[in-house]
Amino acid sequence: MDLLTFGEFSIVYNSFSFTFATMMAATLFFWLNLGSVAAAYRPALVVTGLVTFIAAYHYLQILISFGNAYDVTNGVVTATGKEFNVAYRYVDWLLTVPLLLIELILVMKLTQSETVKKATLLGGAAALMIILGYPGEIAGDMGTRQFWWALSMIPFLYIVFSLVVGLKSSITEQPDSAKGLIKIASLVVIISWSFYPIVYLFPNLGIESAYAAVEIGYSVADIIAKAGFGVLIYMIARRKSEAEGFKA
Amino acid sequence: MDLLTFGEFSIVYNSFSFTFATMMAATLFFWLNLGSVAAAYRPALVVTGLVTFIAAYHYLQILISFGNAYDVTNGVVTATGKEFNVAYRYVDWLLTVPLLLIELILVMKLTQSETVKKATLLGGAAALMIILGYPGEIAGDMGTRQFWWALSMIPFLYIVFSLVVGLKSSITEQPDSAKGLIKIASLVVIISWSFYPIVYLFPNLGIESAYAAVEIGYSVADIIAKAGFGVLIYMIARRKSEAEGFKA
Repeated sequence: MDLLTFGEFSIVYNSFSFTFATMMAATLFFWLNLGSVAAAYRPALVVTGLVTFIAAYHYLQILISFGNAYDVTNGVVTATGKEFNVAYRYVDWLLTVPLLLIELILVMKLTQSETVKKATLLGGAAALMIILGYPGEIAGDMGTRQFWWALSMIPFLYIVFSLVVGLKSSITEQPDSAKGLIKIASLVVIISWSFYPIVYLFPNLGIESAYAAVEIGYSVADIIAKAGFGVLIYMIARRKSEAEGFKA
Repeated sequence: MDLLTFGEFSIVYNSFSFTFATMMAATLFFWLNLGSVAAAYRPALVVTGLVTFIAAYHYLQILISFGNAYDVTNGVVTATGKEFNVAYRYVDWLLTVPLLLIELILVMKLTQSETVKKATLLGGAAALMIILGYPGEIAGDMGTRQFWWALSMIPFLYIVFSLVVGLKSSITEQPDSAKGLIKIASLVVIISWSFYPIVYLFPNLGIESAYAAVEIGYSVADIIAKAGFGVLIYMIARRKSEAEGFKA
């Protein structure tokens, strides 16, 4: 168990709590707004809320597990010997990353067969990416960490590339009022997703306080990729609903 | 209490947490989508969500009970002497398996008298199957385990056989767009239900890490039979609603 200073413990603990609150609030925002988009976009908004709901559950578990792994008395941090369960993040991603991709596909409103095809291909690649990342995350030595990182990057690059190309080609069919937002969504995908492989390599890069930095880095990436991206999905759904004559 | 390695403890614990998150997410998905199917199919979707909701509750209890049964300090697993309550699974199945069958019967939209008749017969057989399975599950010796397994297989085979035959004969009355999905649903029933009696026999078959394998096996079977099957029920309800001219 890595030893943390009081400051490191504090900032990691509070960032977990912050992320839980953000994810739960985002979930309620998406679901309470279901009635403000046309029926065709409600499945996308339902799934958007599922992603942040599942993340909220896992951040609550992470918060509890982290709190149990350390004892903080009079400002001194000691390890209790209880494990900080890193697997919660991976279990979360295994569920939420495929759903994130499905949420984006749903809001594009493609044909049924295209939707199923894209969801299967991208969802499968996402699951593969996460499964390949886990052995490296729990490995002690840096060589193993780097090896699994490299393998996991193959499906990662495939997904990001497909998304960006797919979004670009489908943009002409979208209403003018939504085009700008879809470009922003595509940019947010690239930026927020790039966070993960970079954060993953923090220990390899010999960054100071790497342990704390990884946890905070993943939390920030999760907030942008799930709650932030979800707000964009909601706005796209609103604009498209309005363009199709929907009145709430 | 069986002794577990740290790896076995970890994978079982995380698979319980994964299953809880999946069941809860599935529940919210079914209920939030009630408005996207015709009124005639909403009872089926309500029951589909009940099944995953009850399962989510039991997996949370299983997770807590499992966590209390073992102490994990510095990567060493020891039994605390607290019992891991196996009964949660059986109580869950006693409630959810009859509901699962009812959910399938409801989405077929049979006549009222047929619905009541089928639900009573199949629901009763399901309850009998679970009650007969329990004494074997908690028995220490393999002979007793096998004896109750065999008894429980009688109602099990009756149910699977009735479902497959029933689905096959009713398929002609279903709209074309839903026929393929109903065939898939029937296949998912056979495959996912077959998991249970096989997993049950793991200890008898002398499988390594049988204790952990049973827990993971049941979790996988539950996810497919409840959440996965539920998504198929939702899709069938959507297709049938569309075929009947329903617009959300």
